[in-house]
Amino acid sequence: MSLPRLLITLGDVAGIGPEVAARAWPDLLEHARPIVIGDPAWLKQALRMIGSAAQVKVIDDVADARPMPESIPCFNPSRRDLSRVQPARISAEAGGAAYDYLCAAIDFTLSGRADGIVTCPLHKEGLHAAGVKHPGHTEILAERTGSKHFAMLLSANGFTVAHATLHMALRQVFASLTPAAVLEKIQLLDGILPKLVGRRPRIGVAALNPHASDGGLFGDEEAEIIRPAVETARNLGIDVSGPWPSDTLFVRAQGGAFDGIVAMYHDQGHIALKLLGGGLHAAVNITAGLPIVRTSVAHGTAYDIAWQGQADARGLINAVKAAAKLSQQSS
Amino acid sequence: MSLPRLLITLGDVAGIGPEVAARAWPDLLEHARPIVIGDPAWLKQALRMIGSAAQVKVIDDVADARPMPESIPCFNPSRRDLSRVQPARISAEAGGAAYDYLCAAIDFTLSGRADGIVTCPLHKEGLHAAGVKHPGHTEILAERTGSKHFAMLLSANGFTVAHATLHMALRQVFASLTPAAVLEKIQLLDGILPKLVGRRPRIGVAALNPHASDGGLFGDEEAEIIRPAVETARNLGIDVSGPWPSDTLFVRAQGGAFDGIVAMYHDQGHIALKLLGGGLHAAVNITAGLPIVRTSVAHGTAYDIAWQGQADARGLINAVKAAAKLSQQSS
Repeated sequence: MSLPRLLITLGDVAGIGPEVAARAWPDLLEHARPIVIGDPAWLKQALRMIGSAAQVKVIDDVADARPMPESIPCFNPSRRDLSRVQPARISAEAGGAAYDYLCAAIDFTLSGRADGIVTCPLHKEGLHAAGVKHPGHTEILAERTGSKHFAMLLSANGFTVAHATLHMALRQVFASLTPAAVLEKIQLLDGILPKLVGRRPRIGVAALNPHASDGGLFGDEEAEIIRPAVETARNLGIDVSGPWPSDTLFVRAQGGAFDGIVAMYHDQGHIALKLLGGGLHAAVNITAGLPIVRTSVAHGTAYDIAWQGQADARGLINAVKAAAKLSQQSS
Repeated sequence: MSLPRLLITLGDVAGIGPEVAARAWPDLLEHARPIVIGDPAWLKQALRMIGSAAQVKVIDDVADARPMPESIPCFNPSRRDLSRVQPARISAEAGGAAYDYLCAAIDFTLSGRADGIVTCPLHKEGLHAAGVKHPGHTEILAERTGSKHFAMLLSANGFTVAHATLHMALRQVFASLTPAAVLEKIQLLDGILPKLVGRRPRIGVAALNPHASDGGLFGDEEAEIIRPAVETARNLGIDVSGPWPSDTLFVRAQGGAFDGIVAMYHDQGHIALKLLGGGLHAAVNITAGLPIVRTSVAHGTAYDIAWQGQADARGLINAVKAAAKLSQQSS
């Protein structure tokens, strides 16, 4: 069985992406045949900064890649000039290049020339400065692959969290939380987790209200919205339970009781994810619902520490491991 | 300096209170001069269950107590007959007795005959069956001591959390969250923490919305409610900051950056508290804002494991340690 060919997009070169890719490189080769999609000059600079002896091998086609510990295949699909980009500074050039890397990686993977994409972080404002209308990776991936039902999953410390609602004011959650939204996240987890955990996944769904409403004393969303979605999913044959009080659910997940969790809102999932597994430095972001495999580091460009030699590469290593598992052919 | 005289109320005897008190006993004597307020027969039964050789010494006045490793002073203020109470079963007798223990402990402490109260859990439904109108310890303590501004704090793993709103539907939080509610919790933490942590406490206040609203993109409660309360508290000389994104705030508290946290709603604080410090078995509940010292275990009666010899006594030991610190005389 050959290792999957995974495309590592460098993201915004002013952030920690190049350093993370350079630092992670030796650890990636046992899991995949990785290829960097990005600017060779910035990758070389990162290797120099961390004292790596690995060479950058510029390639014209991903089929030519021969990844080795001392040789990093790098394909640059962008024609933008990054020579005046400053480390840790927002620029249209770096933002636009990050967009170019992602688009090329999507096209290679959609056409079957690669098995999956692992992305380093881009900067929303750089993307915006480059005139890209999408706020981030996930939306670009969804549009370019024609995907309607997708979700960003966060995987850390042995369990994976999907959020029924995400980037919105807490006050808006009540209008956005529907049985369909909860059911969709259960199904996306159930679809993607078997390859990650190697068995039929056990999914736990969080309550919205404290004590899971204590039998209706503290709200009715459990009875009206969440429980019906869980029951529908069970009728579809999914191993799912809930709604569970969120404060005990994550403790049980920490103890191994669940492979996947559906959180009802951003902070509910993120408080737990950041407290466990060494924070989001080691966590993996997985886009479920796409026709291609895509994982990512869960951290951002981290301009505050970029190009200072301090970045932690665990997130990228874990993201490559997850993408490798997800791109295994079903037997 | 003599150790403080602390009254340990047994709570609902059908729950794990008697076992926890019996098991914790040898570890309490280095921190306090403890006295059990409760039923001697049920305490004896718990000692027998765990194989302790300690004897119960029934006393008629707390002034007569001589706590020793092999002798547990026990004062019973209740005239209720508990001989027909069944382990792990709700009863008006056990509920009413728990109420009697608490009232006696409050009166002893208010009159200066004891230095503080540490409570084992009671059962809300037992209390209700006994005709007590209050839902729990905190409300009884507040009424009997004439306290208007009080809060239940939870202390675990080196930091203490106050909740600006607590037992209500998440949807109700928006109407209950006011600058006054946030300020009050900051002040209660600032008032009680110096004795616990031995210095001027550093307090962090959580945001309500994800990313602390990201500059107003996800809600306005940070700007309209939380920040004004934090600024008022700073003007009063309190070392407080925020609102911080809740998912990073608890990670920083775990790292030692804060002694006290003000959470905006129940699950925000409880997800973190239960994931850290081995869950709520080891956590301590502290009532701030009373004229007397009162701490408690943070767990409930745990009827599911009551009288099976499995209860964990760390919560009571930690609650006694905290009460001992809080009852030190100010120098």
